[in-house]
Amino acid sequence: MRWVRFESKGKAVFGIVEGENIIEVSGNPFEKYIKTDNHFNLSEVELLPPVTPTTIYCAGQNYLDHIEKSAKRKGLDPIIPQKPDFNYRAVNSLVGHGANIVIPKDAGEPIHFEAELVAVIGKKAKHVPTGEAASHIFGYTIGNDISARNWQKTDRTHWRAKNTDTFKPMGPWIETDVNLDKMKTIVRVNEKVLMEHQTCKFLFDAATCISFMTRYVTLFPGDVIWMGSEGESSNMKVGDIIEIEITGIGVLRNTLIAGK
Amino acid sequence: MRWVRFESKGKAVFGIVEGENIIEVSGNPFEKYIKTDNHFNLSEVELLPPVTPTTIYCAGQNYLDHIEKSAKRKGLDPIIPQKPDFNYRAVNSLVGHGANIVIPKDAGEPIHFEAELVAVIGKKAKHVPTGEAASHIFGYTIGNDISARNWQKTDRTHWRAKNTDTFKPMGPWIETDVNLDKMKTIVRVNEKVLMEHQTCKFLFDAATCISFMTRYVTLFPGDVIWMGSEGESSNMKVGDIIEIEITGIGVLRNTLIAGK
Repeated sequence: MRWVRFESKGKAVFGIVEGENIIEVSGNPFEKYIKTDNHFNLSEVELLPPVTPTTIYCAGQNYLDHIEKSAKRKGLDPIIPQKPDFNYRAVNSLVGHGANIVIPKDAGEPIHFEAELVAVIGKKAKHVPTGEAASHIFGYTIGNDISARNWQKTDRTHWRAKNTDTFKPMGPWIETDVNLDKMKTIVRVNEKVLMEHQTCKFLFDAATCISFMTRYVTLFPGDVIWMGSEGESSNMKVGDIIEIEITGIGVLRNTLIAGK
Repeated sequence: MRWVRFESKGKAVFGIVEGENIIEVSGNPFEKYIKTDNHFNLSEVELLPPVTPTTIYCAGQNYLDHIEKSAKRKGLDPIIPQKPDFNYRAVNSLVGHGANIVIPKDAGEPIHFEAELVAVIGKKAKHVPTGEAASHIFGYTIGNDISARNWQKTDRTHWRAKNTDTFKPMGPWIETDVNLDKMKTIVRVNEKVLMEHQTCKFLFDAATCISFMTRYVTLFPGDVIWMGSEGESSNMKVGDIIEIEITGIGVLRNTLIAGK
């Protein structure tokens, strides 16, 4: 099942995607919902981020190849994590599929994409055994962890580098039926393929993350875990169209524009 | 005016404190509200964190003395920031005045308090000039940035060290009428005063933070900026009662208990 969020009569609502159509629902996918008579064509609505999480978790260093390449670039030996550690992103930075990514004038270069599989939590969770953790995942969406590398170097934290408004495109929808083993992540800038890799070659999969996290933190329905990015990114410029496809989910497409 | 949040008939509601009484309101302090006929005595309700923020910002290195002492402890020269940079805390970690702080068995030692003034945002804000920034502050509350220093050293991020459930007591209420220049922060563990200092000796005050932040991020009503901590903290143990008083606001009191 495919779940979208969009604006209908000035209100953010959930909908179920069937082919090119959206059936608006009353309620939400995590508790209860009723299908309404409001139907739309996908092309006529503006998609919102498919959830507004209480918390956005990022698994970070979660692909071996990414860790090795980052270390090499810095002239260091790679450090392979023995457990996942999480970073946070902020809700103000989320935008949906089709939205513009607004690059502030003073952001500098490079501006990088990071293509990520995003696990969406479906149930409140604390102290979840590993064997039960997968049942807490409602579905998966796609995230683009836009990163202003200049600020990432000069600031003490990643607040601007990764959490500037519009820097976290997420969508286009949540897909509840996926075959993780078969998924591929493909990144295109202006239709040119820059990256293609197996999506789920994680050091720590979502179930492992959930089980470990919930020893300490409570997860809530709609919380998201961004599962990390693979390989090396490259610089984008204002005007570029960035597409992240994860097979079995869909395509998240956004355009970079100049901000103040 | 003093604003609290508490549970009434199974629902989180806002209330106005007058002396020892709470007048429950319908609505919220940021948009509109109506006083109801439901009145309570402060002692008979369980206070919740006074807001559930979209985002919890932390100004971090914001007191000169704290920066100098931290650097000295590590044998380094102090680095005085030229601008504020923000960290994030997660909503799951918030608890109200009177709640227990639950220390997981494997957290290790030391467990530190960090006493912080917290600015509560009242209006949606983007690109706010410094001169107008103060008008976006709805009021102030108190925060205790409980920190498991062992995890802070061993983990790649602060997710467990600072965001474990119950590690962010905030309250008891929001005070809208304050005299920042006169405020004192006093920390007591088991009634013994461990720290006392002028609250608002910040490198970057809340208005400066808001103006700088909103060049990049949108602030929402109920968002909070934790303004950083002064001096050096000390170890606490299960059973300890930690009180943070900020004069002109009140006292935030919590007890450490053992978790799983």
